[in-house]
Formats: sequence, structure tokens, C-alpha cells
Amino acid sequence: MTTKILRGQALTFKADPFLVGDDQSFQYESDALVMIEDGKIKSFGSYASLKDSIPEGSEVTDYKNSLIIPGFVDTHVHYPQTEIIGAYGKQLLDWLNNYTFVAEQKFADKNHATEVAKVFIKESLRSGTTTSLVFGTVHEHSVDALFEEAEKLNLRMVAGKVLMDRNAPPALLDTAQKGYDESKALIKRWHGKGRLSYAITPRFAPTSTPEQLKMAGELWKEHPGTYVQTHISENLGEIAWVKELFPERSDYLDVYDHYGLLGERSLYAHGVHLTESEWARMHKCGAAVCHCSTSNQFLGSGLFSFEKAKDKTRPVKTGLGTDIGAGTSFSHLQTMNESYKIGQLSGYSLSSLKAFYLATKGGAESLYMEDKVGSIAPGMEADLVVLDLKSTPLMDFRMGFCKDINEVLFILMTLGDDRATESVYVAGEKVYGK
Amino acid sequence: MTTKILRGQALTFKADPFLVGDDQSFQYESDALVMIEDGKIKSFGSYASLKDSIPEGSEVTDYKNSLIIPGFVDTHVHYPQTEIIGAYGKQLLDWLNNYTFVAEQKFADKNHATEVAKVFIKESLRSGTTTSLVFGTVHEHSVDALFEEAEKLNLRMVAGKVLMDRNAPPALLDTAQKGYDESKALIKRWHGKGRLSYAITPRFAPTSTPEQLKMAGELWKEHPGTYVQTHISENLGEIAWVKELFPERSDYLDVYDHYGLLGERSLYAHGVHLTESEWARMHKCGAAVCHCSTSNQFLGSGLFSFEKAKDKTRPVKTGLGTDIGAGTSFSHLQTMNESYKIGQLSGYSLSSLKAFYLATKGGAESLYMEDKVGSIAPGMEADLVVLDLKSTPLMDFRMGFCKDINEVLFILMTLGDDRATESVYVAGEKVYGK
Repeated sequence: MTTKILRGQALTFKADPFLVGDDQSFQYESDALVMIEDGKIKSFGSYASLKDSIPEGSEVTDYKNSLIIPGFVDTHVHYPQTEIIGAYGKQLLDWLNNYTFVAEQKFADKNHATEVAKVFIKESLRSGTTTSLVFGTVHEHSVDALFEEAEKLNLRMVAGKVLMDRNAPPALLDTAQKGYDESKALIKRWHGKGRLSYAITPRFAPTSTPEQLKMAGELWKEHPGTYVQTHISENLGEIAWVKELFPERSDYLDVYDHYGLLGERSLYAHGVHLTESEWARMHKCGAAVCHCSTSNQFLGSGLFSFEKAKDKTRPVKTGLGTDIGAGTSFSHLQTMNESYKIGQLSGYSLSSLKAFYLATKGGAESLYMEDKVGSIAPGMEADLVVLDLKSTPLMDFRMGFCKDINEVLFILMTLGDDRATESVYVAGEKVYGK
Repeated sequence: MTTKILRGQALTFKADPFLVGDDQSFQYESDALVMIEDGKIKSFGSYASLKDSIPEGSEVTDYKNSLIIPGFVDTHVHYPQTEIIGAYGKQLLDWLNNYTFVAEQKFADKNHATEVAKVFIKESLRSGTTTSLVFGTVHEHSVDALFEEAEKLNLRMVAGKVLMDRNAPPALLDTAQKGYDESKALIKRWHGKGRLSYAITPRFAPTSTPEQLKMAGELWKEHPGTYVQTHISENLGEIAWVKELFPERSDYLDVYDHYGLLGERSLYAHGVHLTESEWARMHKCGAAVCHCSTSNQFLGSGLFSFEKAKDKTRPVKTGLGTDIGAGTSFSHLQTMNESYKIGQLSGYSLSSLKAFYLATKGGAESLYMEDKVGSIAPGMEADLVVLDLKSTPLMDFRMGFCKDINEVLFILMTLGDDRATESVYVAGEKVYGK
């Protein structure tokens, strides 16, 4: 059995800093060893404490000037929208009609889907993201295309075909029955295969009939362990539309709850305008919110509230999402940069530790995968990203003035981008190197 | 006489798109020649129209996949704050006390100033910025250090020593008389030397006594052609403080006006919270506002209004500022990205043409330098940046879906950063190449 050993600075989280405070949340080693066997972490600790346990003849990869952290977890992203990043001038509903629904129609061609899936995975890895929760298109084979590529690299990934049977171009509509059948076939084909999982994926309430939402809820009940992913309360126009379409429901979240789409392993993107009672219900049900900062700014959706999401009396599981293509970067470093700014604009200073938590363990907890990915500890799967602390001349200069790991992390998220990704390991295998 | 010739796509502005509309504002050549002689542009136009005028034996540099535009103009930046980019957790007034005033004290040592000036100029050029309006520190030699480095590269630059005689640490205070004398000495030494100009630089109203503001106004009057640079209405706490310190003045701008610091060649950073009457007065006096998007977000200062600044009934000259170190990027591409987001959050979609105008000709007009820099036309100084349209794999992929120059520019500002800077020319000389 070969042991792979990485040496460098390392950081991981042991608890949620929003709940236990920054100081109690993390483990930082200024000179760490990460020992990997069979795709899992065998041991992790200071070099001094572990050096005597290095098996004879093992090769140690020394990442000087670098920080080893868990691979980033992207809890909300649309791979078919890779080609419309940076589409100009619209807010949510117009943006869907003018750009998204146009791009997604091209996925009727599976070759196109495969081509974009390859770009998507490459860009995710270039940015240090090793696990993603991904929307396909309405086309069943859009998920096949993605999972076929993910499987080659043994990625831990969750994805699903979009369910949409109204309020979209005819070419992008399924029916309640067709959506159910195709999703079920995909679950059978992919869920639990290697490191892949399936997410039942109604796009959002306005594009599914009550019948489709009902069948989606039933499908979820029939397949424990699968996920639900959708959108909620991103934009005020969207919320008004949901109210119009579902006047009998008490609020937006109640629509999903009513149709059996709320619970553990359900992840809701955005939640910019959630009400207090919606937050409380999400907490109670173990659902998660996916905060997508670059997207919320790019579409002018509004300012997410970290204080509401993480209210200690009823904290809600929270992950970070790039939301490509409304988001403007695959990099969680850039996403954190924007999250900080969103906090500042609403009078809340997001600490670097909290931001890195959201981007790693927070995402894993949102996916109920905290026993598998999102931190560095014995028994965890070895999904790691090595961040170059001197990845640009300016970062190199600026790091010279940092006094502690908080500052180092803050400089990484303020000045860093995909160039900071030195190496990426997936289940112990190096899949990307600068 | 040697003729230097660049070939590539090229874009420049002929008028303000906020006033004449996007379509009437620009000149785009899909295959252009820029002919340079003696540091100035001799001719500019399509390759087809100019190819017969290429002097025999001239070398033509062919920038394939690139866009030649005027060098970026940064209308607001603090070079001494290069080392505090990404300092965590504060809004304006605390940020000054906790970070800025600490960093600026190190500039008592001129060697330190020179070291930072070198980094600053290098980073500006790496980002394609060829002209900047720069704050030094209170130390007279901080400006010498910067200008000495700028002179070596023949940069068109404007800078000034900070005037500050109250409300800052003692080590950073001058007096009204000392500030006047030192500024005057710097004007004599540097203003009009090569391409350098001087800016009288009261930091902002709260850190100067009425006496100092008065003497600054007198100094400006004595030296026509020099500039005034300062801050205005960045943050609500700051505005309240100004009201407290100058209860007799009608508003923030009135403080500067009263002391003779308002007029053509006066540039005010931020203006996030200006009132209608302040905007109108700035228009009337020919003053300019410097919009600093990454900084306004990073410090949570608020959302700048393009619609107010560029109200057609009383448009105000407007440039773009990085505001390093409260700003988070030297790159005007990244600054435009954030400007777009600020617009979106307040319901205004900033077009890519308007953004590029602000970053080039808009800045030059704010500095009353539109006859020298900020556009590509015969007789203009040859300050140019060549932008690589395929500077990252993602940008390369995304550019494949662009239909026109508007989209190309929008992708540049959404996905671009310093990597997009292919080459930089200053007065016709190549000073940076990737």
C-alpha cells in the first residue's frame, strides 16, 4: 500500500465558527503532514508529531509557501451556463428568458453537453473546487454527460436533471410524468455509483406545475439518500410571481414544504429575501441555504444576511455557491471576496475564518457529507486543494505584512483567484497542478 | 525618425456615451493600425485605409487576439496603502485609524517610500494603467519618491503630498504653513517636469483646520494648472462628522468651495452620498467625481449612482478610481466588474462601453487631459494598453460566444484581470509585456 504524504501549512475546521466563535472552530498547523492511503486521509497533524510515522521510502511532497485546505465545496452551480457567464444587463426573470433558456436548448445535443461538462469540470478544478451540487438542463442526457466526465476523475459530485413543465420555452419543458421517469432512471443509473449522488431538481416553483412538484416530492420519498436542489427568494419579482402562482401557500418555502421537498438533504439557492418564519422552518427541517455572492451582485438580487442565516437561536446550514453563469467566477476565493463585500454593505464584517468555513465544511454539512469531505482528518476522503500564498506579485508583497492565519486567509480571499490553486487532490490522486 | 506600428483590434472613445448614447460614442476597428512617432500617435485607422502609408522598413507589431485601447486612467489611488490592501473588518473612519495611519507613518523613511513606489508603479502597469492621480503621505519626500520612479518611465502622473493638521496621529500632522511650504516646494520641483503634474492634496475636510484649507486654496490660486484632489461623501459617519466640524457650511462640498478648493482640475473621490445641489454645483464648477467601486464595497460605504453623476441636465465629469488600499484591485477591469454590480444593486445596468469610457477618456476629461491621453487619435500621446482577449482558458472559451464588441468588452470586465494586460506603451515606449 502506497502512502502519499503532503507537507505544508494546513488549515481545517472542527466546528462552525458562527456558532462556537472563530477561535474555537479551526485547526491550523504551520508545518503539517497529511498522510494519504487508499484515497483517504490516514493521519493529519504537525510534522513534528508525525514525522516518525512516515513509512520508509515514502515520498513527501513539500508545498512550501502554500496552504493545504479541504477542497472547496460549491453548493450551487449550473454547468450548462458556463457559456453565458457575463451576460449583460438583466435581473433574474429577464435573464432566464434572454440568456439561460437560450443556452440550455443547445443541450438537446449530447455532444455539446459533453463538451461543456469538460470545460466546467476543468474550471472547477482550476479553482480548487472538488465537490459541486450541479444543475443540468431538462435533458436527461445532460446529467449523463456530466457524470460520465466526473466519474473519470472520481469526483464526489451531486447533480440532477432540471424539472420544468411550464413557464419556459417548449423545447425545455418536460411533463410531470416524464420528469419523474427520467429522474428515476438517472437515480438508478448514477446515484451511489462511485462518489456520485443524485439531486431531484425542480428549477424553482414558477417553472413547475403543482403536479410536477408533487411527483418530485414523491420521488424523493421513494429514494432516501438522494437530494433536492432548487432556488428560493432570490429576487423580489420572483417572490411576487410565486405568490401569484401559489396564492394558497403561506410563503415561498411553504410551496416546497407542501409538496414534500423540504428536509434534510434539500438545498435552496440564494435565500436573499427569506422571512424569519422561513429561516426558522429551514432550521427545523435541516435544510440548507446556498449563498451565491457574485451572482446576487451581478443580477442585482440583493444582500444576503449572514446574521439571519446563522442566528444562534435557529442556525441554518449554509454553503457557498458560485452560481455560474449568473455568478462571475468559478473561484471560491473570489466568491468569498464578494461575500465579504455583501456583508460590509449591510454592516456585517464576515471574518476570513467564517468565509473559509462556508466554502469547505459549511458546504459539506449542507450536503450531509461532513463525514466524507470538507475537512482534513483521519478517515476523511482525501479531497484537498493546495493554495499558493504567493500566486501573484501583489499577493506575495502583501503576504509579507500578515501577522496571523486570519490575515493570510483574508488576503487569499481578497487578492486570490484561480492562480492560487497550486494543486488539487481528489480521493488522494493529484488531478490538477499549476 | 522611427515609426512604431501596432496592429490589432482597437477601440477608443470620441464622446461621452452617457451623453450621446453608446452607439455614437466610440470608434472600433476590427483590424486597426496605430502608427506612433516621437511618443505620439501619428495616425490611427483601419489597416485597409492606412497600410499604404506604412513607411518602408517599419516593423509592425501584430497583436492577434488582442484589443488595443488607451491606457487606463486611475483617478483616485493612495500609493502608500499598497501594503494594506485587504485589511479586515472596518468602515471608513476606523479603517483610517487602525490601518491607514499606521502604514503611512512608515513613510517617514524615504527608502520605504521608494520601495513601495516601485511596487505601486509595477502593479499599475501590470494592470494597464498608464496615468494615475495619486495621494502620497504627509511626508514631502513621499512625493519625491513616487515622481522619481514615475519619471524614469516617463509616466503622465499627477500626485501630491497629503495636507493634514488635525485628527490624525501627531507623526502624520503638518501645519497650515508647513503644508503650504512643502506643497509649494514640490510644485516648483515637479509640476510640469516632463509629464508630471502636482495636485494639492488636503486629505479630507475633517483632517484639515480651516486655516489649512484656506492656505491650500490660496496655493491653488497661485499655481494655475495644478490640481486639487480630496475626498467627499464616502460614508455617512464621515458626512456627519464634517457637519459637526463645519456647522456654518451648507453642505460637505460647500466646505471645499468656501476655501477655494472647487473648480476645474479639482477631483473628489467617492461622492457616494452627494446631494442634488452638490451634484449641480460640481457640474457648474467643472469639478470631477472619482468613482471607486471596489473600495465602496470593501468598506461598505454605499452604492454610487451613475444616473445622478451623469444626469444629462447637469452631467458631472466622472472617472474611475481603484482607491488602493481600500480598493481591492489595481485592475480597472476588476473595478469595472464591481461598478457594474453596484449599478445592478441599485437597478441601473452600466453598459460595457460606458464602463470603458469611464476607465479611459472619462478619467482623462476629469483631469482636463483629454487632449493628451485617454483616447487613440492623431496627436495624442501614445499611452496604450493591449488587452489579451484570451487571457485565461475561461475567457478564451467565453469569447467564442460573443457577437459584438459590446459583449467582448463586457467579458473583459467580467472575467478579466491583470492577466489580460498583454503589453503597455507609455509615450510610445513599451514598458510592460506579459
